[in-house]
Order: sequence, then C-alpha cells, then structure tokens
Amino acid sequence: MTRDDPLTVADVARLAQARLPKELWDYVAGGSGAETTLAANRAALDEVAVLPRVLAGVAAPDPGTRLLGSASSLPLAVAPMAYQRLLHPDGELATAEAAEAAGVPFVVSTLASVTVEEVVKTGATTWFQLYWLRAPGVVEDLVARAEDAGCEALVVTVDVPVMGRRLRDVRNSFVLPDDVVAAHLTGGGDGTASRAHAREAGTSAIAAHTAAAFAPGLGWSDLEWLRDRTSLPLVLKGILDPRDAVRAAGCGVDAVVVSNHGGRQLDGAAPSIAAVPSVVAALAGQAAVYLDSGIRTGTDILRALASGADGVLVGRPVLYGLAADGAPGAGRVLSLLAEEFRDAMTLAGCADVAAVRELSTVRTVRA
Amino acid sequence: MTRDDPLTVADVARLAQARLPKELWDYVAGGSGAETTLAANRAALDEVAVLPRVLAGVAAPDPGTRLLGSASSLPLAVAPMAYQRLLHPDGELATAEAAEAAGVPFVVSTLASVTVEEVVKTGATTWFQLYWLRAPGVVEDLVARAEDAGCEALVVTVDVPVMGRRLRDVRNSFVLPDDVVAAHLTGGGDGTASRAHAREAGTSAIAAHTAAAFAPGLGWSDLEWLRDRTSLPLVLKGILDPRDAVRAAGCGVDAVVVSNHGGRQLDGAAPSIAAVPSVVAALAGQAAVYLDSGIRTGTDILRALASGADGVLVGRPVLYGLAADGAPGAGRVLSLLAEEFRDAMTLAGCADVAAVRELSTVRTVRA
Amino acid sequence: MTRDDPLTVADVARLAQARLPKELWDYVAGGSGAETTLAANRAALDEVAVLPRVLAGVAAPDPGTRLLGSASSLPLAVAPMAYQRLLHPDGELATAEAAEAAGVPFVVSTLASVTVEEVVKTGATTWFQLYWLRAPGVVEDLVARAEDAGCEALVVTVDVPVMGRRLRDVRNSFVLPDDVVAAHLTGGGDGTASRAHAREAGTSAIAAHTAAAFAPGLGWSDLEWLRDRTSLPLVLKGILDPRDAVRAAGCGVDAVVVSNHGGRQLDGAAPSIAAVPSVVAALAGQAAVYLDSGIRTGTDILRALASGADGVLVGRPVLYGLAADGAPGAGRVLSLLAEEFRDAMTLAGCADVAAVRELSTVRTVRA
Amino acid sequence: MTRDDPLTVADVARLAQARLPKELWDYVAGGSGAETTLAANRAALDEVAVLPRVLAGVAAPDPGTRLLGSASSLPLAVAPMAYQRLLHPDGELATAEAAEAAGVPFVVSTLASVTVEEVVKTGATTWFQLYWLRAPGVVEDLVARAEDAGCEALVVTVDVPVMGRRLRDVRNSFVLPDDVVAAHLTGGGDGTASRAHAREAGTSAIAAHTAAAFAPGLGWSDLEWLRDRTSLPLVLKGILDPRDAVRAAGCGVDAVVVSNHGGRQLDGAAPSIAAVPSVVAALAGQAAVYLDSGIRTGTDILRALASGADGVLVGRPVLYGLAADGAPGAGRVLSLLAEEFRDAMTLAGCADVAAVRELSTVRTVRA
Ligand SMILES: Cc1cc2nc3c(=O)[nH]c(=O)nc-3n(C[C@H](O)[C@H](O)[C@H](O)COP(=O)(O)O)c2cc1C
Ligand SMILES: Cc1cc2nc3c(=O)[nH]c(=O)nc-3n(C[C@H](O)[C@H](O)[C@H](O)COP(=O)(O)O)c2cc1C
Ligand SMILES: Cc1cc2nc3c(=O)[nH]c(=O)nc-3n(C[C@H](O)[C@H](O)[C@H](O)COP(=O)(O)O)c2cc1C
Ligand SMILES: Cc1cc2nc3c(=O)[nH]c(=O)nc-3n(C[C@H](O)[C@H](O)[C@H](O)COP(=O)(O)O)c2cc1C
Repeated sequence: MTRDDPLTVADVARLAQARLPKELWDYVAGGSGAETTLAANRAALDEVAVLPRVLAGVAAPDPGTRLLGSASSLPLAVAPMAYQRLLHPDGELATAEAAEAAGVPFVVSTLASVTVEEVVKTGATTWFQLYWLRAPGVVEDLVARAEDAGCEALVVTVDVPVMGRRLRDVRNSFVLPDDVVAAHLTGGGDGTASRAHAREAGTSAIAAHTAAAFAPGLGWSDLEWLRDRTSLPLVLKGILDPRDAVRAAGCGVDAVVVSNHGGRQLDGAAPSIAAVPSVVAALAGQAAVYLDSGIRTGTDILRALASGADGVLVGRPVLYGLAADGAPGAGRVLSLLAEEFRDAMTLAGCADVAAVRELSTVRTVRA
Repeated sequence: MTRDDPLTVADVARLAQARLPKELWDYVAGGSGAETTLAANRAALDEVAVLPRVLAGVAAPDPGTRLLGSASSLPLAVAPMAYQRLLHPDGELATAEAAEAAGVPFVVSTLASVTVEEVVKTGATTWFQLYWLRAPGVVEDLVARAEDAGCEALVVTVDVPVMGRRLRDVRNSFVLPDDVVAAHLTGGGDGTASRAHAREAGTSAIAAHTAAAFAPGLGWSDLEWLRDRTSLPLVLKGILDPRDAVRAAGCGVDAVVVSNHGGRQLDGAAPSIAAVPSVVAALAGQAAVYLDSGIRTGTDILRALASGADGVLVGRPVLYGLAADGAPGAGRVLSLLAEEFRDAMTLAGCADVAAVRELSTVRTVRA
Repeated sequence: MTRDDPLTVADVARLAQARLPKELWDYVAGGSGAETTLAANRAALDEVAVLPRVLAGVAAPDPGTRLLGSASSLPLAVAPMAYQRLLHPDGELATAEAAEAAGVPFVVSTLASVTVEEVVKTGATTWFQLYWLRAPGVVEDLVARAEDAGCEALVVTVDVPVMGRRLRDVRNSFVLPDDVVAAHLTGGGDGTASRAHAREAGTSAIAAHTAAAFAPGLGWSDLEWLRDRTSLPLVLKGILDPRDAVRAAGCGVDAVVVSNHGGRQLDGAAPSIAAVPSVVAALAGQAAVYLDSGIRTGTDILRALASGADGVLVGRPVLYGLAADGAPGAGRVLSLLAEEFRDAMTLAGCADVAAVRELSTVRTVRA
Repeated sequence: MTRDDPLTVADVARLAQARLPKELWDYVAGGSGAETTLAANRAALDEVAVLPRVLAGVAAPDPGTRLLGSASSLPLAVAPMAYQRLLHPDGELATAEAAEAAGVPFVVSTLASVTVEEVVKTGATTWFQLYWLRAPGVVEDLVARAEDAGCEALVVTVDVPVMGRRLRDVRNSFVLPDDVVAAHLTGGGDGTASRAHAREAGTSAIAAHTAAAFAPGLGWSDLEWLRDRTSLPLVLKGILDPRDAVRAAGCGVDAVVVSNHGGRQLDGAAPSIAAVPSVVAALAGQAAVYLDSGIRTGTDILRALASGADGVLVGRPVLYGLAADGAPGAGRVLSLLAEEFRDAMTLAGCADVAAVRELSTVRTVRA
C-alpha cells in the first residue's frame, strides 16, 4: 500500500467524486427531499456505541456466516444498484467480480446494465433483485430468468412504489446516456425503457421511467403469488415497521432488509438502525434480519449486528470503488470493510458473528 | 417545468426573499423574541421520523379528507394571514384562488386586506378567522358578515391577546402602506385601524394597532357566547395545553388548531408538533385536531398526521408563493405540497389519510 | 424609543461590551474553567418550552408577588454583585435606584463598592448578601450593620468557599483600580482588602483577596448561629442539591437560591434550571425557591416559574445596563424584563404569578 | 506564575503541538478510525453535570486516597504510555519524576523507552503495565522483572489484541526513530522489536510491531495463570462491559480500568464515562474501578468519581507536559490537575474522596 492508497470508504468516496461528473456523483451520493433521512442514517449509526469484550481468547476471529443458507465470508452482501455502467464501463461485471473475490453475495438489480447471466458468470453468489414491473408477464419472466441463471435468492424491493423525490437529479435533468441501458428490459416489454434516456428539462428521466414502468399497488397477495411461484429463498427489501416484518415472515419470507433505500425514497423515514431492534424483537427469529443504509465502516457492521441484525447490505461504497477504479476499486472497498470488520471483531473480543450479536450497545451523544 | 422552477417550498421562499423589501420579508418570515420557538418548530418536525408501510396495495393514494365535515382534496387548509396585499396587489384574492384550485379551504383573516365577500367569490371553501375586537358590536357584526358571505366555519384565534414581541418589525419600524388596509375594519368601528399606518420610530405599527383594537381578557364565556350565537362549525386556533383542548371540546368546539402562531407569539412556547400527541390523547376524538407552525413539505404533513393530527394549516409558504408570483405562485406552493404529500403517502404505503394516522413514528436525532 | 434603543438584554450587553475595557467585560461576562456551566445555563433554559394557556380572561396580568413576605412588582430581585463602581462611577447607587424604580428588591453584596447605608437611602427594598469573612467579629458586625441600615433580608452565599477558577481574570491579571473598594471592609478588619488591589502577573487579585479574606470551612452550625442571631428572613444562595435544600429548611431558612453563581464557581456544576424541579419537590413548600444563572428574558422568568421556582435573581444583565448607561441603563434592563415578562404572562394566559407556576413545560430540542 | 504560563491542560496541549513534529503530535493526540470514540469521550464527560454540596465545613479538602492499598495524594495515576522518549530525551524518567513529586502512582508500559528499574529509581510508586507478548517466557520474565524492581502492582492491558486502526499513523507512515526503543524488549526476545523501526510507506510501523509481537488470543486462563503467578495487586485495564468486570473480579483482580484506550483501539466503543455506572453497580465493591480516556481537568476527576469510579488514569495530558517542557512540564500538568481537583472538591463541598463519590450527577445538554 502506498501513501495515497485509500484507507477508508470516505477516502474512496473522495476519489470517486473527483472522477465523476457532478450529475453522476449527485445521482449516486444523493438522497430524496431535504436529505433528512440520508443524514439521519449516519447520525444514528454514529450514536450506537458498543461495549467490547475482553480476554475472549480470540486469536483470529471468523467473520464468516451463512446468508440465506449459503456461506459468506462476511455478514455482508453487495446491495442491488441499478445501471452500474454509469460509473465504469465494466459496470456490474466489475462489482460482481469484486464480490466474488471477497466471498460475499452480489445482488443484481432488475435495472442492472449488465445481464444477470453475465453476472453469474463471474462466479459470484448472485441474488436477483426484483422490481415489480407493469408489463404483463415481465415479472414472471424475470423470476424464471433469475432461476435459470443460477441465482440463489430473490430480493423483492418493496419501497419503490414510485421513486423518491430526488431533487439533485431533477435539478440536473438527469438522464441515462444511450449506452447504459436496463439490460434485462431491452427485449421489448412495454416500451417504457426509453423513458430513462429522454432528457426533459427539470425532470429526472429515471424517475419518469420508474413511474411508467413499475407496477402500482403492489400488495401482499403479489408476494404470496411469488412465494408459491419460486422455491428460491425470498428476501423482502425495504421494510421499517415491525408489523410488516411479521406479516412478511407469515408469508414465508426468509429474510427482511430493514432499509430506507439509503435515504433515497421517503425523506423523513426513520434511520434503518433505529428500526432494527424492534424488528428483530417482533420477528423473534422467524426470518433473518439484514440492514442497509449508511454502512461505511467495519464498525458500522459491528453496530448493526450488535443491534440485532444478522447481516448488512452495502450500497454506495461499492459504487464509489467502481467509479474510482473499476473492479479493483470495488474490491478495495470490500477488502477495506473486511479488514475493518475483522479488526473490529478482534478489538471487541468476538470470535465469530454470533459473538458480535451478543455485544451490548449504548446510545451515546455525538461529538 | 423548467430548470429554474422551484422544486420545494424552500426554493419558493428564496424567490420571495429576493423579491421582497427586507422589512416585508422580515414581517412574514420572522418570529417573536429570540425566535427560539420559530426555530424549534422546524427542529421538532425534523426529529419526527416515520416508519413507512409496504405492500399495502396502494395504486394511487387518496389524500382527500373531510375538514369540518366538508370534503377537502388534502388534509390541509391555508392558514389565516393578515394583510396579504402587502405581498402582491391581488392579496387574498390570489391565495384564495389558489386554494380553490387546489381544493382546500382558505381561512380569511379578520385583518384581511380583501373582504370576505370578495374572497368567497373565488369559489374557495372559506372559513372566517375571528379576532375579538374591543369595539362594541364588531365581533357580532363580523360573525354575521361571515355567515352571510357563506363562510363554512369560524376560526377563533386565541393566542393573540397582545401581539408577540416581533423584534424585526420593531427594528424596522414596520408600518402598513396606505393602500393596504384591514378591509373588514374600514367601516368605522373604533377608529383604531389607522394605528397600523402610523409610523413611529422603534415601534411596530401593527403591534400598536393590535394593542388598541383587540379586546383584552378574552375568556371561556366569550367562546360560549359565540357557540350559542352561531351554528357554524367552530375552530379554536392557538392552543398547546391539553387542558385547554378538553375545555374547548366541552364548549362545543369542533376542532382545535395546535399552534404557536408560527413562532410569532410567545417565544419559548413549545413546538406545535411536540404538543400534538397529548392533545390528541386528551381529546379522545371529542374534537378534530389540526396543527400548524412549521409545515414546509409533504413529509411534514405526514409527520403531523402520524403524530395524531387530523390535518394541518399552512401559513408562510403560501405567502412566499404569493410574493414570488401571485396566484400562480401560491398555487405552485399548494401543488408542490400536494405532490409531495401524495408521494409521501405512496412511499409510506398509505391508501388514505386514515392510514397515515396509523403510521408509527420514532424520535430521531438530527444530523 | 428610537431606532437604536436596546430592545433586548442582548442588545444592552452589546452596548456594554463596546463601552468596557476588555478586562472588565471579561470579569463580568466570564465564567470559570472552560465555561461549560456558563454555557449550559443558557442551553438548559432554551430547552424548557412552555405550554401557554388560552381564554383565561386575563385583561392585564399582575406580575406582582411577595418575595420574603414583602411585595415586589415582579418575581425578581437584583442579584448581589460585588464592586459595581467598576462599571460606572455611580455603582450600586445606580442599580439600587433602578431596582427601586422597578419596584424589585436589590441585594447589596458584602463586597459592594458603595455602603449598604447609602444603598438603603435610594429607597430600594434592600437585602444584604453576606460573605463569611475570616476576621473575627466581622460577620457579626455586618449583620448588625445590615439590620441597622434597614435591610429586609440576609442572603448567605454558600457557593464561594474559594473563588472559582476564572481564567479570563487570571490571564488578564485582573485587579481592582484604587478607587473601587469594598466599602464595607474599609474600616480595618484583617487588612486583607488591599489584596484585591495588588497586581500580580498571572493572578486574579480578586481571587487572591477572596482566598485571604473568606472564612474557610463554613458549616451548618454557622448557619444555625446566624439563624439564632437575627430575626431577618434568611436566604441561602448557591445550592443545587435537594438534600442541602431540605437541610437548609430544617435550619429555618426562608428561601433558597438555586444557583451556580452564573457559571462563575464550579465549572461542571449543573445548570440551575435543571436542579429546580427536584429542589422544589424535596422542599414541598417548606421554603421559597428562587433561581438565578442565565436569566436574560421575560420568557426565562416564565420558564423558571413554570419549572417550580417562586422567583428569580438577575445578575449580569443589570451590570450591562449599568455599564451602558448608569442608572437609566440598569433601569432599561429591568423595564425590558418587566415588559417581556408581562407580555409573556399575557401570551401564556396567566393572570398572576400563581398561574405561571401552573404552566406545563416540555423539554424541547434546541435548533 | 507569569502571563504565559499554561493555566489548563488545553494550554499545555497547544504548547506541545507547537513544539512537536506533526507526526509525533498525531501519534499522541490521535485516535483510531474516524475518531468517533476519541471525540465521544470528551462529549460524554462534558455532559456529566454535578450537584455540588454546601456548608459541609470543608476548610481544606483532602484529595488523598488509597490506590491498590497504597496512599496516593490524588485519586489519579499516570496511565501507561509507550515510548515516551519520543517526546523528550528524558522520557519516562521525566514523567515518573513528575509523578513522584505529585505523589501519584506511575504506570510504566511494557513498551517503555526507559527500563522499569530506572523508573523505580525516581522514587515514584510504580506499577508495571503488561502487554502479553508472543515470545515464549517473555511475559514471565517481565513479571519477575517488575516484581524484582519493586513495582507495586501489575496492570494487564486487555484491549490491544491488535492495534486499533490509527489512520493518522498510517498516513504518516509512522515509525520509531532509531534511538527510541522498547527498553524492556532489547534483550533478544523474538526479534520483532525492529519492526517498530522499519519504515514502510502507508504503514504504521508500531502497528506492524504490535501485530508481530503481541500474543493473539489472550484469554481468562492467562489471567488466572498470572493471578497464581504473582502476589502483586492485579489491575485489568481496558474493560467496558460489566460482564467482563464481574468475571475479572471472580478471577481475583483487584481493580479494573474502565477504558477505551483513549479512543485509540475500537472506534465506536462507548465513552468510558458512559460505562462506569453499570460496571460499578455490577461489581458492587468486589474490585476497585478506575476510569481513563478523556480526563483533562479537575472537574473531570470529580465527574468520574461522582459517577462511581474510585480513581482515574491520565494519559495524553502528561505527555503534552513532557513534550512542552520535560519533567517540569509533566509536573505542571499534574499540579494543574491537583489544583483544579482540590478547588473542585472545595467548591463541591467535599472534604474527602469519599464525599466526592456521594455527589449526585445529572446528564445535561452540551451548549
Ligand atoms: C445508485 C443507487 C442505485 C440503486 N438501485 C437500486 C435498485 O436498483 N434496486 C434496489 O432494490 N435498491 C437500489 N438501491 C438501494 C440500495 O440497494 C441500498 O438500499 C442502499 O444503497 C443502501 O444504502 P447505502 O448506499 O447507504 O449503503 C440503489 C442505491 C443507489 C445508491
Ligand atoms: C404574515 C402572517 C400573518 C398572520 N396573520 C394571522 C392572522 O391574521 N390571524 C391568525 O389567526 N393567524 C395569523 N397568522 C398565523 C398563521 O395563521 C399560522 O398560525 C402560522 O403562520 C403557521 O405557521 P407557518 O407560517 O410556519 O406555517 C399569521 C402568520 C403570518 C406569517
Ligand atoms: C460581576 C459579578 C459579581 C458577583 N458578585 C457576587 C457577590 O458579591 N455575591 C454573590 O453572592 N454573588 C455574586 N455574583 C453572583 C450573582 O449574584 C448571581 O448568582 C449570578 O450573577 C447569576 O447569574 P447571571 O449573571 O447569569 O444572572 C456575582 C456575579 C457577577 C457577574
Ligand atoms: C501515546 C500513547 C501511548 C500509549 N501506550 C500505552 C501502553 O503502552 N500501554 C497501555 O496500556 N496503554 C497505553 N496507552 C493508553 C493509555 O494508557 C490510556 O488508556 C489513555 O491514554 C487514556 O486516555 P487519555 O489519553 O485521553 O487520558 C497509550 C496512550 C497514548 C496516548
């Protein structure tokens, strides 16, 4: 490692910001509305202080765990994120490769700019993230395609009935360039895909696309249909209210992701970490609980698990790595998080992930 | 919408500030004393975080509700605000027109610069806000005039026994220009109206007018008299203590507005949102509960309703719109809030206003 | 009032700061140590939000009350403050005159730069503040002198066993000028008075004087001796722990002042307002409870009383007025506070001081 | 004392910073990760407000206490800190001399740059801090050496299984100069000592050394072995979780140091002061409780003891004094803390350390 190597995700973010055109940086880093929830995600994580354990006889901690029944080298998966070729020509191939190298699952978005089949070829454990599209048959096709490609789980994102009001994108009249497309939606469908490429002043083209393409009114019966339709593990991404978590478990969901979509959907939604304890308590083990939104360090992973989560998803940091340096950049982010988490486990006296979940936390004041 | 269109109430406020002479901006935007309560209104709203619901099958949420028994397109009314011709020659006509177009009630102030009869002609659902004036017979006349004009409710403002110490106005020696008058008070009365137009250095002329014109010592018996006098729905505006809310309900009041007058009266009064839950609990449904003071976004409306309110009043934002661009400006503010609230409902999985009131909230740290 | 008249105590403070040499400003405005408690006094007051009452039929509130059995036009006394001729040649004569005009008690310090006899001549209700000096017989003499002069109460300050570490004074090598002396201590005593006039680099001469002159090891038996010695009402100034309040009441004390000496003694002591509720509860009416430290506005008086106090003492603001403009300046401060408190009572629907004490408070977030 | 003499530890820190090369300042002042815990240590101490007592008859407080059965002039020991010759040629000799002069114990680090035998010659009460090294026999040798040298206690530091991620050191490629060595580890051992002197870009050489030299996987059985091995009092340094405190007491430990290593190990660990009350409660007197991390003033010592601790360790401030002016500088820091603590005791009405522990505290808002 040389003097200029990034030592933290914050370093990587700075490199990415320096490299990206403003409108791309804004698209990735931004949140919705007044970005209250975006900021609250960090503030609430910073307030979780951990009580480390000592003399636990931990020579080398094992950060490995099982996520949805498969081994993962960390209690972490790469969050589904759309259109990654915006940030680097290799797009999802690069990030999936990094996930594969890191030994963690990669979640491929419905709106990926590289197909799930190509992603799977990287060798990464792949989960398919499902947006429920309006066009008849498309959801069923996507499920089949994910199954056929060898995905090991379906992640149904339920917090995007419409896109959040992302004002940076609106002010930038953000639009996808012609060469970055939703790779799973090119085969016809309902012809809405072009919306994401049509620049209209004072409008976010991707919000317009979402409005046109996503099915309105998704309900529990859709989830039940899907539960019947596939035998893959099902993850419900984007819940915060424990009542929804319990209902999801009742529908046979295997895991929930406590998430506010990284502060990109409802501005004013609770920080994910604040919702975790009550979701964990309400579920009482009926389904696994993952958290995302704001994870930036190994300590954050410790905080999440000590608060009761079984694992985390990491979003923007991976894209920062991708933007900074393609697959090696994304890999650097994952290895930083791995190093940091391993160090944090060691320093907290935790031999394994189960021990991390036994740590006590106190809410502390931010300085 | 073009690149420069305002996307938030904050954008509109900036446009208004750029357009208004400082003393008018100060008059509208300012609060009393050290502006502690003014700032606390925002801070307290920002701390209310919501737990959205998912998979609720909400294709298109219905933000409509009934306010005092009449349909409203939103759980929102335009707050009573005096002398709107200060901000635009069309004054209350413009804002009432905007309210009418938005399908929400408009509350016309006793101190309006346009008469209630003219306001009613815009077609807006009109409520008349009553200040209790000293001059004998004036209150009774105003009530009769409001009834005759076709107002659908009376809003009795009880937090202005005297005007709050609005230091910006005092420092500006604020005075009404000759051509902006209290349109309901021109017909003689006690001759105090001219006080608002008499510049005295180091004095707020409108505070002097209020002191001269408003009846001191308003009591519950006055409210009882009014309850007997009119069959219109009665709203008590400006309460924060649950004991007052319960007493008001006992007097036959139909609704209370939990309000600190936008931080313009008692500096040091609690932020309205902090008082809502105990007022709602104490009333137990005996009267409707509205909130004002600090509502700036659709998320704020969600916060207020999730905290137990039945609706909100919006004040300054409408004046910012009026100052920026007359009726279209005021309309833009109301349509922004409507869009934002509809989006917030969708993102929170709420099919209707009743569902919003079932949302859970957590108090979160501000970033 | 003209445009430049001060409208708040903060305005007066600015005038004073502009007029005073830095070392005098520092002496008055400063606190001890890192000034944590000085700042916390304000922060904690700002967090107390009040729930005003409405329709209470208050035509003109009566801010009058009884303090130690005598009528006062406000629930406020001027706090004892040493050496006021530092700030203006008229010193305590000016501030006492202002107190007399305002109809509130004036507390004359043991270390006053004008004698108690002269102060009493102003006509002000005068209380004598007692520091327990080492020199034999001096305390007894001071008590007799206060009684003879016509003082109506004795205020025993118990939070100055030594002077707090006031670093501004130390850095300024602060010393009293020759013409400002402790007027009650000139008649010989133990010859320590000159210490306050002896400049030593890197030392606060007044701290040196205090160390030399004040009796160490003051105890409850001293208070019992004093209780037997005088029939004047006794006030214990400078308590924060409810256990001390209860013990004081057991010794026959008539009132306690919950105080941290305006943040000038123990840095890290609790803000006074935070200690009031438990002191009030513990005393259960056995003694009156006054508060000082940080009162700057009429709303602050409301906050203190709504938190349970019977009255407040006001310190620095009176000195700011004195420095800015002698007796009229001090008078302006008191009339500002009176106006602000009367307005706050009116706006909070309180007919009298008893009603203020019935107000509810909520702890709110600072913006 | 002259005008420029430092009056607070903060003053001394500024002098040190001015004198030290940046990389040395960073090494001493810095923390791990985002320095969240480093900052939280101060923030949490600042929030502890004390309720002083009055009329306690305290002529001159006695800050003396017993630490591990021996008399100490203050409830304070100098924390173990490695390589003090980095800051001044006299290194640990100077700080031990200062401790001796102040009458407080000095803890000599395993990684001291001066040997324990030389330290003991200063006459200071010396405790030996033990890091558990990998090399066979070294721990046993160090224990014997400490016993033989006349150390009065062993302090086993348990929060450094690996070094925290101290990013400043990494960015500075921090390395020990050739003439500053771990004086106890020169006699051969496992040859890892040279690692601390080998500059590698983008690496902290001292972290590399620690990784190579420290025994991984320290467990409770090691502690039991040590308890059997020595009859010296045993202190466990670096615990935060009450469960570990109780277990340590069960192993016969005489005291625990509630510590996060001054924010240098697990970033995100709780501030020490936040953990003290529950550790004290859980131990119920079975072992003494000391606190370190963030103590900078006499008031901080008061805060720690009022929160239940029996004493504190002070780290960086002593090094700031050493860097600023050798033994006299370190002495100035200790005498400042002594003066401040004595004043704080006096101002809080505490005759002795036991009385300090009876003070009440309230959590207050920071300004
Ligand atoms: C640029 C970007 C694109 C995203 N696209 C998707 C997506 O297609 N599907 C999805 O479920 N979530 C998407 N998310 C949300 C992430 O899966 C995840 O919830 C969020 O980024 C977590 O917060 P973090 O970025 O603070 O780690 C996206 C997030 C970002 C930043
Ligand atoms: C310029 C201005 C004039 C107002 N005039 C009146 C009035 O005449 N009658 C009344 O009841 N409230 C009046 N109010 C208070 C509003 O009705 C409302 O309570 C307040 O503005 C709500 O806070 P917000 O502005 O933060 O939304 C006025 C407020 C403003 C800003
Ligand atoms: C310049 C100055 C001198 C003071 N002298 C005395 C004194 O002689 N005796 C005393 O009991 N308190 C003294 N005090 C403390 C005040 O009585 C009072 O407790 C404090 O000023 C209240 O805080 P405030 O200044 O924030 O209102 C003094 C305060 C100041 C600012
Ligand atoms: C430069 C430095 C070196 C340290 N070396 C050691 C050490 O060798 N052994 C140890 O147990 N603690 C060591 N510590 C931690 C201190 O003993 C103590 O826990 C910490 O400094 C307390 O926090 P404070 O510096 O805020 O007072 C070191 C701390 C510093 C700042």
